[in-house]
Amino acid sequence: MDDVHHRDHRGTGTLNAPAGTPDAPSGKLDAPSGKLDALSGALPGSRLITDPGILTAVAADHAEWAPAGRPLAALRARSTAEVREAVRVCAALAVPVVTRGAGTGLSGGANAVDGCLVLDLSRMNRVLEIDEENLLAVVQPGVVNNDLKAAVAEHGLWYPPDPASAPWSTIGGNVSTNAGGLCCLKYGVTRDYVLGLEAVVGGPAGEYGTAVRLGRRTTKGVSGYDLTSLFVGSEGTLGVITEVTLRLRPALTRQPYTVVGAFDSLVAAGHAVALCTRRGLQPAALELLDRACMEAVEDWKHLGIEAGAAALLLARVDAPGQAGHEEAAAVAAAFADAGAVWAERSTDPVEAEALFEVRRLAYPALERLGPVLTEDVCVPRSAVPAMLARTEEIGRHHEVRLATIAHAGDGNLHPLLITPPGDEAARLAAQAAFEELLVAAVELGGTVTGEHGVGLLKRDGMRRELGPEVCAMQRAVKDSLDPLGLFNPGKAIG
Amino acid sequence: MDDVHHRDHRGTGTLNAPAGTPDAPSGKLDAPSGKLDALSGALPGSRLITDPGILTAVAADHAEWAPAGRPLAALRARSTAEVREAVRVCAALAVPVVTRGAGTGLSGGANAVDGCLVLDLSRMNRVLEIDEENLLAVVQPGVVNNDLKAAVAEHGLWYPPDPASAPWSTIGGNVSTNAGGLCCLKYGVTRDYVLGLEAVVGGPAGEYGTAVRLGRRTTKGVSGYDLTSLFVGSEGTLGVITEVTLRLRPALTRQPYTVVGAFDSLVAAGHAVALCTRRGLQPAALELLDRACMEAVEDWKHLGIEAGAAALLLARVDAPGQAGHEEAAAVAAAFADAGAVWAERSTDPVEAEALFEVRRLAYPALERLGPVLTEDVCVPRSAVPAMLARTEEIGRHHEVRLATIAHAGDGNLHPLLITPPGDEAARLAAQAAFEELLVAAVELGGTVTGEHGVGLLKRDGMRRELGPEVCAMQRAVKDSLDPLGLFNPGKAIG
Repeated sequence: MDDVHHRDHRGTGTLNAPAGTPDAPSGKLDAPSGKLDALSGALPGSRLITDPGILTAVAADHAEWAPAGRPLAALRARSTAEVREAVRVCAALAVPVVTRGAGTGLSGGANAVDGCLVLDLSRMNRVLEIDEENLLAVVQPGVVNNDLKAAVAEHGLWYPPDPASAPWSTIGGNVSTNAGGLCCLKYGVTRDYVLGLEAVVGGPAGEYGTAVRLGRRTTKGVSGYDLTSLFVGSEGTLGVITEVTLRLRPALTRQPYTVVGAFDSLVAAGHAVALCTRRGLQPAALELLDRACMEAVEDWKHLGIEAGAAALLLARVDAPGQAGHEEAAAVAAAFADAGAVWAERSTDPVEAEALFEVRRLAYPALERLGPVLTEDVCVPRSAVPAMLARTEEIGRHHEVRLATIAHAGDGNLHPLLITPPGDEAARLAAQAAFEELLVAAVELGGTVTGEHGVGLLKRDGMRRELGPEVCAMQRAVKDSLDPLGLFNPGKAIG
Repeated sequence: MDDVHHRDHRGTGTLNAPAGTPDAPSGKLDAPSGKLDALSGALPGSRLITDPGILTAVAADHAEWAPAGRPLAALRARSTAEVREAVRVCAALAVPVVTRGAGTGLSGGANAVDGCLVLDLSRMNRVLEIDEENLLAVVQPGVVNNDLKAAVAEHGLWYPPDPASAPWSTIGGNVSTNAGGLCCLKYGVTRDYVLGLEAVVGGPAGEYGTAVRLGRRTTKGVSGYDLTSLFVGSEGTLGVITEVTLRLRPALTRQPYTVVGAFDSLVAAGHAVALCTRRGLQPAALELLDRACMEAVEDWKHLGIEAGAAALLLARVDAPGQAGHEEAAAVAAAFADAGAVWAERSTDPVEAEALFEVRRLAYPALERLGPVLTEDVCVPRSAVPAMLARTEEIGRHHEVRLATIAHAGDGNLHPLLITPPGDEAARLAAQAAFEELLVAAVELGGTVTGEHGVGLLKRDGMRRELGPEVCAMQRAVKDSLDPLGLFNPGKAIG
């Protein structure tokens, strides 16, 4: 972790304005208390938070063992105008800006750096517009994913992206990490739903604190570079997203089919996933749970799950009418052909919901056992069996307790590395296994992060994956849009 | 046009390296003949083309009245290695690089600038890999869209993006303009299918001529900024795309339904489109043709079309089985409810194909009448009736002969401004109407280009649409990745 911690400090240190930049920090306010006074003075009437307990609470996201710095202060912004003013003042004072929503991130992307302002957008939580005629919504970044889903459902509409954190995570965070989820197998990830953004930026657009509109309200458009897609997944490093225009779909009214398959090994389940892809099947979700997940949920909730199988696959099929019936049968047949111990279509919606509930409960159930380091690799779907085999090998080699949940149909695997609380040796072993899993994913043609983002935990992995030339391009884009290095320094590409 | 021409010259003039840049042009080779000798000498064994007739042929795309400069030479590259060498040499000699595929563009994006090297990639036309297990293809940029469709169809797969130019246009061009087409209403545009790229770049990645890999082969991934999406639609201004990794879908095996509606006004047809959206219907295509289009096709091909109606809507519905049957009925009902003179489902695939053939023939049929200036605005779908009304007004005001074809379901309208050959007054009137249509689209919440790109013809419109702050951000990104301004100077954001 020393290296990671070192990076964190370097991150804070990157806030050096190029000579001659109008917004260059004065350099006269190095003492934190002086900066804090200046910040308080410059943001009159604002709800600037300096209470140490609250600052500790907002200084980290949900990533295990990702280093968090000590913020100078926090601000719960309530409007774009407040964000603009805060960014303007922070630029003038050379105070880094770290934006956060609900703090459910799993890579440390929202962790504070020393001396920063934490800009908490969770109170900017209004759905500003639901446009039924154009199937879109305009929302503030602090709207919780499930709240948006509920709001648009009242209009017969649907916002598909469904990260497991949907009951708590915010749209701003979803956009900043390009969150995925279960149904992206068929319906795409967050980027596929972001039509436009409002963001508070600096640098070429003008003084830091300038609000710009990127993207559009139309379904198509190629006017200039796609800066909207650039901001999606940028983890707060290019500016502060203050409004999002989202594409919606008509709500699905039909009841989906659920297909369950039990396998006597993880790798066999992986082969079933690969076979579904090869046969052109398109379930809306295709999730994998291993025995460790099922046992953890059963020990906690006593749902009566028989965790006899080594792995379970859960497919949701939502093609309409007879087509759905046939596709569900085809998925069950693929499971069987790949060697499932048993595979069946569930016709009982209550039972189906209970199975997906087990999937949703797996992560919190495992967290009860001790600190969990969450992996997020994504490999080509044909490499899912190989990646699962490598995962088991790496776990055995490092003697790490492993559980695996996966958006298997996307090749997006979440091996969870579970450590007994306070066991330092186990922590080091888990961290070593974590890095090795990243290497394995890249070797298999995959990526170190499918949907959680780079944050602090995947920086080395990202560098290995992209190589120095592409990292230099990434860095050049960052520097061009944030020449002061004000926004979330030291994270992801920073 | 003076202004546009002026911009073109300015474009050429932007190739000024910042002082101290290693690749800075020497400034000793200003005389074109000296540069040409140097280029010939530095690209030994290459097929450097200097024949004036061929140079004229490759100096322009299909955009009417977009100014084209005189290239120094052209090169029909056959490999990434040849592209790398050409870019390296051009950077050293300060020779701008203008990349082209089939030259079917409609905005002047592939037009030569004075003294450039035209890099023709149409011979890099191999499908390198079709991966059935992961539903993807890896192709060279010169592969023709329909050739790719045919190649993947042999594996039971489908590459959906279908610009009207699909029989001729190349994947490289499609990617560079983020081409749309008919079926993007349901299946998305080119960007939605580009997983990764190989590109020859310069600047931060190293010496000009460095090849980098952007993106991935996995379905999901958030490792660093989405440079792949940035390159899609960048019109050759960030580098030369030499390989594309494309997502594929399983082929649709079912026969789609076709629904036809006839309307006594363009605006009434627009209301039917808006109604389909509001009712949550999702046809795979929803196309509009006006009477002028139908008459032009009939005069040319004598297909027996009765062009009695003012406008025709053509919908293709491909939901499976009974669901498709029901959706086709719902589309026909929406047409009727919006006031169609008649609306019916075609059960005859030959008749359905003939109707879409009329749609495809409309553009070439109109081109027979004289130079055609092709508009490409896109508005929110609820604004389609208003935009059609504004289009008619603008046509009347400028006394311009207008025909309209539209991907109406996307709000993407292509008013075609037809001028008698050699009629200078008509040309000026058409150009004035063209600009006014851009203004109207932006006023209605839309964009100046839905799928054709900015090129030369939409530069002023883009500036008005994006505003100075966002244009400055766009420019900063361009400068960061192409500090010499080598790649396609003066186009789009350049």
